[in-house]
Parts: sequence; C-alpha cells; structure tokens
Amino acid sequence: MTITAPKGFRAHGVAAGLKSAAGALDVAVVVNDGPDATAAGVFTANRVKAAPVLWSEQVVRGGVVRAVVLNSGGANACTGPLGFQDTHATAEHTAALVSEHSPRLLIGASEVAVCSTGLIGERLPMDKLLSGVRAAVKGLARDGGAAAARAIMTTDTRPKSTVVDGGGWRVGGMAKGAGMLAPGLATMLCVLTTDAVAGTETLDAALREATRLTFDRVDSDGCMSTNDTVLLLASGASGIEPTPEELAEAVTAACRDLCDQLVDDAEGATKKVAIEVTGAATDDDAVEVGRSVARNNLVKTALFGNDPNWGRILAAVGTTAAAFEPDQLDVAVNGVWVCRAGGAAEDRSKVDLTGRDVTVKVELHAGTAAATIWTNDLSHGYVHENSAYST
Amino acid sequence: MTITAPKGFRAHGVAAGLKSAAGALDVAVVVNDGPDATAAGVFTANRVKAAPVLWSEQVVRGGVVRAVVLNSGGANACTGPLGFQDTHATAEHTAALVSEHSPRLLIGASEVAVCSTGLIGERLPMDKLLSGVRAAVKGLARDGGAAAARAIMTTDTRPKSTVVDGGGWRVGGMAKGAGMLAPGLATMLCVLTTDAVAGTETLDAALREATRLTFDRVDSDGCMSTNDTVLLLASGASGIEPTPEELAEAVTAACRDLCDQLVDDAEGATKKVAIEVTGAATDDDAVEVGRSVARNNLVKTALFGNDPNWGRILAAVGTTAAAFEPDQLDVAVNGVWVCRAGGAAEDRSKVDLTGRDVTVKVELHAGTAAATIWTNDLSHGYVHENSAYST
Repeated sequence: MTITAPKGFRAHGVAAGLKSAAGALDVAVVVNDGPDATAAGVFTANRVKAAPVLWSEQVVRGGVVRAVVLNSGGANACTGPLGFQDTHATAEHTAALVSEHSPRLLIGASEVAVCSTGLIGERLPMDKLLSGVRAAVKGLARDGGAAAARAIMTTDTRPKSTVVDGGGWRVGGMAKGAGMLAPGLATMLCVLTTDAVAGTETLDAALREATRLTFDRVDSDGCMSTNDTVLLLASGASGIEPTPEELAEAVTAACRDLCDQLVDDAEGATKKVAIEVTGAATDDDAVEVGRSVARNNLVKTALFGNDPNWGRILAAVGTTAAAFEPDQLDVAVNGVWVCRAGGAAEDRSKVDLTGRDVTVKVELHAGTAAATIWTNDLSHGYVHENSAYST
Repeated sequence: MTITAPKGFRAHGVAAGLKSAAGALDVAVVVNDGPDATAAGVFTANRVKAAPVLWSEQVVRGGVVRAVVLNSGGANACTGPLGFQDTHATAEHTAALVSEHSPRLLIGASEVAVCSTGLIGERLPMDKLLSGVRAAVKGLARDGGAAAARAIMTTDTRPKSTVVDGGGWRVGGMAKGAGMLAPGLATMLCVLTTDAVAGTETLDAALREATRLTFDRVDSDGCMSTNDTVLLLASGASGIEPTPEELAEAVTAACRDLCDQLVDDAEGATKKVAIEVTGAATDDDAVEVGRSVARNNLVKTALFGNDPNWGRILAAVGTTAAAFEPDQLDVAVNGVWVCRAGGAAEDRSKVDLTGRDVTVKVELHAGTAAATIWTNDLSHGYVHENSAYST
C-alpha cells in the first residue's frame, strides 16, 4: 500500500523505456484526490540543482500539490533552459491527463511537482517520458503505491515503502536512493502522503523536523546530489486533524523507517553503520563529529575489513571543531570500549564485526547532547558500482 | 644524497625490527653538524596529535634543532602520557648518543625532534627502538640520506627524495606518505635540510609559504593524520645567505617535487589527478572548490573507471560556498571541455582517460584567482590496502 495506504491517494508506475533494462518500471504518478491538497517539500542544499528541483520548489511554494510525476533513468540535471522546459512540459502534460481522467479534478501544471533521478547531464527522451505519463495516469489506482515505489528505483536492489498508523489517519511513504546518500539531504527522492487534516505550515514544520533528524543524518558516501527531494502531501481524507506534535512524530517515524531501508540497501555496502555521538556540548557538535567519522574513508575501509581501528576514528574526530579534549575521548565498537581517555582500553580482538550491523559510539565528555549518523562501509562493491555506473 | 646533499648534515637508517618484514629499515637519524642549527616546523592540524608531534612542536618552538629521530612501524599516537614519555626517552637517548659519537657536538634532548609513523594506538617497542637509534647514530654518514629516506617508508612503494640547487647552497628533502594524504597537511613525515644561512623567522616564513602551496593542496583521500610533520633544518655550512624570496622559492620547489612523488605513489591509486580551479573570486574559493572535487568519492570512482563524469564534478562544486553561478560553470577533463555554461558541451567520448595523469579544469567565471589540488582516484587497491592495513 505504501503511499496509497492513506485515504485520498492514487498512484501507478509503468515502464516507459527510460531505463535500458526491458520492462523496468521508470515512470510513476501520484495523485492527491483530496479533499485537501496541502503540501510541504524539502530539497537538496546543492547549489547545482536539477531542473525538476527548481520547478518543484516553486510548486511547493504555491502551497497546493495535487500530483507528483517521477521518473528514473535520467536526472535532468545540468541540462540548462531546455531541461527546465522539459520539466515544465512534463508537469503540463501530467496536469492535463490527470484532469482528463479524473472527473472531479481540474488541476494546473503549477500544482504538479516533478522528480527525476538517474544520470546527470543528459536530456530526457521526452517522447518516451510523456507516453509513460499517459500510461501511468490511465493506471492510477488506490493500490498503485507499490508499482510507483518500484518505478523510482535506480541502483536500489529493492523498493522502499513505509506506513505509519496515527490512529484513524496514516502517513505513507516511498523513497529511492542507494548511492550519493549525503547530508542536507540524504540523496534520494521521497514522497510522503497522509490523510490527516493539516495546514501548509503544520506540514512544513513536521517535515523539517523529520528530515533534520533522519535524512539529514544519513551520510552514506559524503556526496550530495543535485536532485534530492522530499515531498509531503496531505489529503485530509480521514477528517482527523492530529496535533502538530502527533503529525511530526508520525512523519519522523515514516522518514526514519525509509532511511533505515536506504542505508540497508546502499550501493555495494556490506555494513550498516550507526555512529552514535554522546556527551557533546551541542547537537551541532554531535552531528559534526558523527559526520566526520561517517565520511572518513579510512574508517569506512577498516569497517569493510572487519577491523575495529579506533585510531582512525579518533583521527576523524580530531579534524572537527567540536568541544572535546583529545585525552578524554572514549570509543566503543559494537559494545566493546576499545578506547578510553584517548588511549587503548579493552582488547580490540573482543570486537565482533562479522555481522552486517555496526554501532560506533563516541563519547566526547563535553556535555549532554547526542546525535546518530547512519552510514556504510567503503567496499569493493561501492568502487565497482560507481566506476561502472554510467558506462 | 637527498637530505645529505646540503653541507653540514649526516644521516643514517637501520632495521630495528619495528616493522614485521625482516630487514626492513625503520629507524632513521638526521644530524645537523652546523655551524648553525636554526629550524622551522609545520605540524598536523588534527586536534588528536601523536606524542612525537606534541614533543617536536616544543622543540621547534625552542628555535634550535640539532637532530631528528624518525621511526616507521608505529605512530605513537593515542598512547597517552606513557607514549609521551616514550618520545621523551627517545629524544634523550638520541641526544646522548649523538653527543657521545660526535666530538664537536654536545646536544640536549630539547634539540632533538621526533617523528613516528605507522599504526595508531599502540605503544612502541622501546627496547627495539632505542637499539635502533644506537645503530643509526653509529652509522651516521655524509651519504646516509638515502638510507634515512628508506627507513621512514610505511605503505610507500619507493622512497621520496629531492635536491634543489640554489647556486652555492642547496635544499634537500625526504618524505614518506602514501595514504591519509590530506589537507593541513598532506599526511606525511618530511625533513628538509639546507646549508643556506637563514634565521629562524626566515626559515619559518619560507616553510609556511611552501607548505601552503604544496602539502596543504594535496588531498589524496580526505583523511588527516595525527602525525604530520614537516621540518626544515639549516646548517649555514655553505656560508651563503640567500634572500628570503630565494629561500622560499627553493623550499617550495623541494616540497612540490616531494608532493608530486607522494601523489604518484598514493595507496592503491591508478591515477594522479590535478584539479585546476580557475576564475575564482579568491584563493580560498579556488582551494575550497578544488578540495570538494578532490574529495568526492563519486568523482574519484568515476576517474578510476575512466569515466569523464562531469555531472559528478558539477555536483561536487555545488556543495561549496564559493562564488559562482551554476549556469556559468565550465569543466574540462584532459583538455576536452565536456561542460560549458553548466551543461553538456564537447562529446565526452573524446576524453582519453587511459593514462595515469588526469587534469580536471573547473572554470568558475567569478574572478581571477586560481589553485590546483592534487589527488588520486578511488580504486579497488585503495579499499584493499586500507581494509587490510592493520591485520
């Protein structure tokens, strides 16, 4: 059910030939049948933004989002004014087709968000894309979420979906993203839906709180995409208006579940790693330290090699501006405190790194703030996938 | 000749059993016989500093450096107060032995700099190290530079040495470093010698100018070490006092040559990559953009795969705060301008990436400042070496 679990949404995904693999789904459409059509969005912090990001930022600013059209097989990034025209045309086409096939909906292009993912720097094959949109709109269904989730996959090995029950109302979500998972946002496309009743400001606050604690704290490979988009659409179809706190909690839970699935399926990764920083003077310090460890290629390769190399972890912490004293740092790997007070402590041979899940704890002894950053190891698989991706 | 090319220096390198490989050189001593013993030093910006860094910073602050003792096979980092005592004892031991074996030199521990490199977090086997120092001091010779350069190698596949002729005076140098090459400093140990006559302030200015333009602009894998040290020792034995500019130029040339050798021998690398940023508003902008591209794992894996993936380069530029407009960026890979004005330009199939040397040019169109950052690709070899290093 995924994004179609909440009432008021239809979706579908089809194969339009944008991906080279025959029959691979690559175009999805999500429609909000209302009664409401409030929305919020968060977009990549990269200054080189893809055309669909520039477009969808405007759509979300308008406050009403009635449909989202998504494609894999091409990012439509670094494609200049013509690429932007392609995005605009896709939104126009989607608006016209949805209006045509939905008796009670008359929507304009400015109410259609667009998301694209795939290779940067190439124009989209618009004939294939627009044909795909037509097929997707014709197939829109109350149980179409699963097909939509599959159509946005790139190097993902499996679709990512979630449903959170708020008690009479729900939050549903789908996401894609397997590489280029990095801060401000973890690189991906994500559509969240809810049948709760919520105004634009409430949705915006809930989404920002949720992404700050989830997608912004996933840092698979330190690379930030041009296309990151997280959209939250509310239909109000449940007739229930949760408190802002209830809504934020449910949206955060949905995002957290999707993040977990993204990190678990990151390109070539053999480990899912949580960097838990505690004892920080501030949240920002905790995030800075966690991110520095998560991005350190020597830490990441050590974890790939099942090596609890706490010296590399300390070296990564040492590059930050966070408050701490080097001779007070404690580090645990999978529960074994291999470093205390900046030096060797428990026997590193006690650390069992044979499993897929790894927890690295860094205690700064500088305060009470904490944060967890999710990341992966750096493996031969990562190098292989990313050196062969475009060819 | 390397560091013993300038007059007034003796050196030697011996096998003390710190490295597991039988007969591998791992302890070196360099002595400045004067008449002068002025010196300057630059050290890692990492806040987690190894004991020898903390020690040598004090020695250099004293203004007189008569000897340097270096070891591979152990970094003596994150070893606490006992590790610092080990460094102190090594300096004491070296000072006593050099004084004993050099009739005209009577030196104290506070005039002996110490450098260590290897694994973090383990104490050094002091018995082996001190025996090694004794053997190295006994073997000190005017032609001992080559042995010293070999004794500081870790995962380096070859020693790195240089000599720059100033006209009657020289600058010699040796360096080691094959991974953890990162900014502020490129991770390594480097000892530079000169027989020029130069005061401490002149040496310090020359070394800072040189490292700013060379070691600080090498970023092999984005990781900063706990042990980085660059020392410049002047004997004055040539009797010639160059101008500060002449000295800075020669020291910069020596550092540049050593950097080139370091990047050429980086762990597992198959490419030596120059990121040349032009048209920047400021030097800092140029360095920030160059470093962002150099550190981007997706760019690095693409280069490993001989893929001129300019979209990933633009995405890396877009994460910086440098002055530029996304739709004005130009990118060339090995001379082919694959991106103009933020979009596709020349055919990417024209780019020949089969060779070892790669040049990426990024033109920001925001000013006249420029900088080059040297880096490497991200290869299976890097993952292999760094996942297997400590085990």
